[in-house]
Amino acid sequence: MSFTRLDKSRKIRADRGAELTTANWQIEAAKRMLMNNLDDEVAEHPQALVVYGGIGRAARSWEAFDKIVEVLERLKPTETLLVQSGKPVGVFPTHEDAPRVLIANSNLVPEWANWEHFNELDKKGLMMYGQMTAGSWIYIGSQGIVQGTYETFVSVARQHFDGNTKGRWILTGGLGGMGGAQPLAATMAGYSMLAVDVDETRIDFRLRTRYVDHKATSLDEALKLIDTARAEGRAISVGLLGNAADVYAELVERNITPDVVTDQTSAHDPLHGYLPQGWTLEQYLERQESDPTGTVAAAKQSMAVQVRAMLTLQERGAATLDYGNNIRQMAKDVGVDHAFDFPGFVPAYIRPLFCQGIGPFRWVALSGDPEDIYKTDAKVKELIPDDPHLHNWLDMARERISFQGLPARICWIGLKDRARIARAFNEMVKSGELKAPIVIGRDHLDSGSVASPNRETESMLDGSDAVSDWPLLNALLNTAGGATWVSLHHGGGVGMGYSQHSGVVIVADGTDAADQRLSRVLWNDPGTGVMRHADAGYDIAKDCAREQGLDLPMLEGK
Amino acid sequence: MSFTRLDKSRKIRADRGAELTTANWQIEAAKRMLMNNLDDEVAEHPQALVVYGGIGRAARSWEAFDKIVEVLERLKPTETLLVQSGKPVGVFPTHEDAPRVLIANSNLVPEWANWEHFNELDKKGLMMYGQMTAGSWIYIGSQGIVQGTYETFVSVARQHFDGNTKGRWILTGGLGGMGGAQPLAATMAGYSMLAVDVDETRIDFRLRTRYVDHKATSLDEALKLIDTARAEGRAISVGLLGNAADVYAELVERNITPDVVTDQTSAHDPLHGYLPQGWTLEQYLERQESDPTGTVAAAKQSMAVQVRAMLTLQERGAATLDYGNNIRQMAKDVGVDHAFDFPGFVPAYIRPLFCQGIGPFRWVALSGDPEDIYKTDAKVKELIPDDPHLHNWLDMARERISFQGLPARICWIGLKDRARIARAFNEMVKSGELKAPIVIGRDHLDSGSVASPNRETESMLDGSDAVSDWPLLNALLNTAGGATWVSLHHGGGVGMGYSQHSGVVIVADGTDAADQRLSRVLWNDPGTGVMRHADAGYDIAKDCAREQGLDLPMLEGK
Ligand SMILES: NC(=O)c1ccc[n+]([C@@H]2O[C@H](COP(=O)([O-])OP(=O)(O)OC[C@H]3O[C@@H](n4cnc5c(N)ncnc54)[C@H](O)[C@@H]3O)[C@@H](O)[C@H]2O)c1
Ligand SMILES: NC(=O)c1ccc[n+]([C@@H]2O[C@H](COP(=O)([O-])OP(=O)(O)OC[C@H]3O[C@@H](n4cnc5c(N)ncnc54)[C@H](O)[C@@H]3O)[C@@H](O)[C@H]2O)c1
Repeated sequence: MSFTRLDKSRKIRADRGAELTTANWQIEAAKRMLMNNLDDEVAEHPQALVVYGGIGRAARSWEAFDKIVEVLERLKPTETLLVQSGKPVGVFPTHEDAPRVLIANSNLVPEWANWEHFNELDKKGLMMYGQMTAGSWIYIGSQGIVQGTYETFVSVARQHFDGNTKGRWILTGGLGGMGGAQPLAATMAGYSMLAVDVDETRIDFRLRTRYVDHKATSLDEALKLIDTARAEGRAISVGLLGNAADVYAELVERNITPDVVTDQTSAHDPLHGYLPQGWTLEQYLERQESDPTGTVAAAKQSMAVQVRAMLTLQERGAATLDYGNNIRQMAKDVGVDHAFDFPGFVPAYIRPLFCQGIGPFRWVALSGDPEDIYKTDAKVKELIPDDPHLHNWLDMARERISFQGLPARICWIGLKDRARIARAFNEMVKSGELKAPIVIGRDHLDSGSVASPNRETESMLDGSDAVSDWPLLNALLNTAGGATWVSLHHGGGVGMGYSQHSGVVIVADGTDAADQRLSRVLWNDPGTGVMRHADAGYDIAKDCAREQGLDLPMLEGK
Repeated sequence: MSFTRLDKSRKIRADRGAELTTANWQIEAAKRMLMNNLDDEVAEHPQALVVYGGIGRAARSWEAFDKIVEVLERLKPTETLLVQSGKPVGVFPTHEDAPRVLIANSNLVPEWANWEHFNELDKKGLMMYGQMTAGSWIYIGSQGIVQGTYETFVSVARQHFDGNTKGRWILTGGLGGMGGAQPLAATMAGYSMLAVDVDETRIDFRLRTRYVDHKATSLDEALKLIDTARAEGRAISVGLLGNAADVYAELVERNITPDVVTDQTSAHDPLHGYLPQGWTLEQYLERQESDPTGTVAAAKQSMAVQVRAMLTLQERGAATLDYGNNIRQMAKDVGVDHAFDFPGFVPAYIRPLFCQGIGPFRWVALSGDPEDIYKTDAKVKELIPDDPHLHNWLDMARERISFQGLPARICWIGLKDRARIARAFNEMVKSGELKAPIVIGRDHLDSGSVASPNRETESMLDGSDAVSDWPLLNALLNTAGGATWVSLHHGGGVGMGYSQHSGVVIVADGTDAADQRLSRVLWNDPGTGVMRHADAGYDIAKDCAREQGLDLPMLEGK
């Protein structure tokens, strides 16, 4: 069996429109979303099957990709395909209310759950890194993270600047698949941003999709652009070509302190995700192969430089936060004992939302028609009439976010709203108001779907950060409820050994059966998030559970 | 919320008969099986909720136990209860073909997946150790392991003694919940056995249930009993009160070499499962609390003594095997570099069975009537007429195994037979031939349900020992297929950090819906085992897949 990771002849684009090439819309959706993850407009390195987040892949090899598509085209509505780290391994009889695809990616028995062992297996063709939405086929381009980043930056402003971002600026690193959302989110929230990336093609990609406003090749040039804008009361973003470790250290040296400091290089993967200081991209690629151990060591040393600079900038008054790439852990590994002195973004800014099951809910129009998304935007406003912040988000998103691949929308809503909104979309499909079914999903970075002690579950009230029963229950329950595909991953976001998480996707095809499934799955899925936080003792979650009538047997007062 | 681990007033016994106390037989089965796991006849320390295998529990606390029972009594046939490390945390809407209970026990994010962190959380009341069948409510007493142990000993004889066990004897340690099956399995296979245990109450328990023939309090006495029996061509078993490390070292000293050497103390849990040399049971219990670190260190030192003795006995010609308690790893941790020189029992003796999906299939008569089991015994013989080894097993089991709690039977069968047999049982329930429904399940130690590189997946052909995508897919698929309850555990058998595994239980209640579910789930479940072994390159598994028509998309020649 040959094993092809890179095929330069490939150009993948999902079908559009209302014509089926498979037995039904559940299966069609899986096929289109897999393909959409590898669309040139969507993926970071589509011909290498890499969607985003370091080496986050959609399929293990091109042979595996072809076979998945082939199986989906013959799959029956009462069968389920099993995908093991991006490879289709079995087809089994289930029933119509069961998921059509079940996925497990990158999972390793804990004692062996590290990058060394993973990379060995990956090299042998036995595994694939699924990241979060790459291997679970619900990545929607940088938009997928824009709102989360925007909500975080708004929350930073509320906590540190009385809500006023005028003249404020943010320093960050990384303009990759997720990181590329930062400049847009920053300017949407009213900040200017300086974003450093070593790879000029990444900056150009963000310019092209209007996520970043300017490119600069020297720090002076970048600072000048930003200072001018700030003086004029405008918010702009600048992508600076350079190494984040160099630039952060240089700012410390020059005694220039941004208002907010964070980072979104792929620090979670020291072998593939972080360019050591002084290396060229070519050297990096070459030495990954010829000297992986040395490469990892060099990357971690540079991360240590960057984290030390971040700590100094924090001391000098910058609101400093880890933005979910595990850079603190990497620096700590090589002796930066105080690396965890600045907080992760979840406990600092996002947890109150998670307590209500609020997280990165998203949907995709299988028709391929942007109008379908605009109609759903309007429907959300109609059904949630009293939330100006959300309306503002939807307006800005429509205005400023270019679609990548199939048109999609992200919208942070919670237990109270998810099933309601989804069922309304299903009605719109049924009535013909939309041209084709809608796919509904979320990030694995969500309220009930992840255990990640350096990120989503950092500093839980009861100390249960590392308990991963929760995401496993989430995946089992979504399977039981009748989601269209369900995934269980390890190592997303923060890398091997540091997280376990699950994904869910469900199709609104306009049928009554879908209506039933949507009302179960999109109640249960955020419900497990409220449950997990209520169990940990958060009052917001307990109140939400009581208000929404969630059945939590051991909640006090029940 | 109070948290009670030990309640000496408790005496649990499941209901018998055909009367329901819950909404249907699926839910009734969960309730009875939970209770049966804590029956005095079944569990090792029922009042502490400990079923077997060190601190393997059925529920997190007595409060959690009571609440689980209460929820099951009100659960609707379209609802699903979530259990997180032995605590009932949520009730969610699903549908009739979905599991009624979903369980996740002892799961930790890999970087934190060790006994130290687990014990901390366990102490805080945030977790529970589920072992394999303890927290997943399908433990059936020592019988559950008798056949596996018997098959292993028979296989040892085939490989080392031309199948002739006459006059041969086995040395082992541990007469606990699982280990207690060893003497019976040994004599069934024609060996004599010397089994060392430090706890006299455990030896007495095995005498009472006829698993062991004699008790001895000195090595001389024990050896004399065995030598006499061997001289007379009889096979007997002796439980020797003593510390395994002392006794193994003493045998080396005296230059006495058994034919087979193994061990089944709870070495996987150095804090609770292995008494250090020179300590009394009371000291052990006291120092677990007052000095956990010192206790673990002392236990590992004694294990090192025992493993060194095992290595010497191996050199002197004994067939030596690790019987799945991770004692080699523990010894290696404290410097016994060659600990892994003797093999684990799975690669050495059991894997060919796993390749065909053959493993510890089991069932329980909810009526409580032994006659129901005898009738199923007869049905198995009728449906598998051409397997004298299996018939012999069933005859011996009926004759020599005392039921513990609800009557149950274990029988190692595979992909070819499981669904067929289960559907026949369902017919017998339907026709009234049996007095009540039958519960069908298996150990987590099975063909497709576990990743455990020091045990079930040791030395896989392709090096995929540590890949745990497989048991996760198994659990998701069993949930999708409509099992009655499904569980995902970590750390069973070999302890924290070393394994991930899943359980499945399904009820044959005589309905057509059950017939459908049984034909799916009991095909799929062993099917994932054949799939996993075929994917790893085992010819026996590939042949089995082809013969049985398993749909494995990337199997060559497909
Ligand atoms: N906070 C969140 O919500 C969230 C969500 C998803 C992912 N993440 C994490 O964010 C990180 C980035 O994700 P992504 O999808 O953008 O990854 P990516 O691999 O697509 O992009 C990483 C970018 O960092 C750049 N880079 C590497 N080393 C650099 C250096 N020394 N200096 C400057 N730039 C450098 C690369 O050129 C690349 O453009 C990952 O660790 C990911 O796991 C966070
Ligand atoms: N091979 C298999 O199929 C299989 C299946 C299940 C469990 N296991 C493993 O086997 C082990 C035993 O399981 P169990 O359910 O019998 O456990 P258990 O905790 O019920 O029994 C362990 C026994 O070992 C005795 N013991 C402890 N230290 C001793 C010492 N130093 N010398 C002599 N005896 C000592 C204890 O008194 C106790 O009776 C566990 O590690 C378990 O994980 C193996």
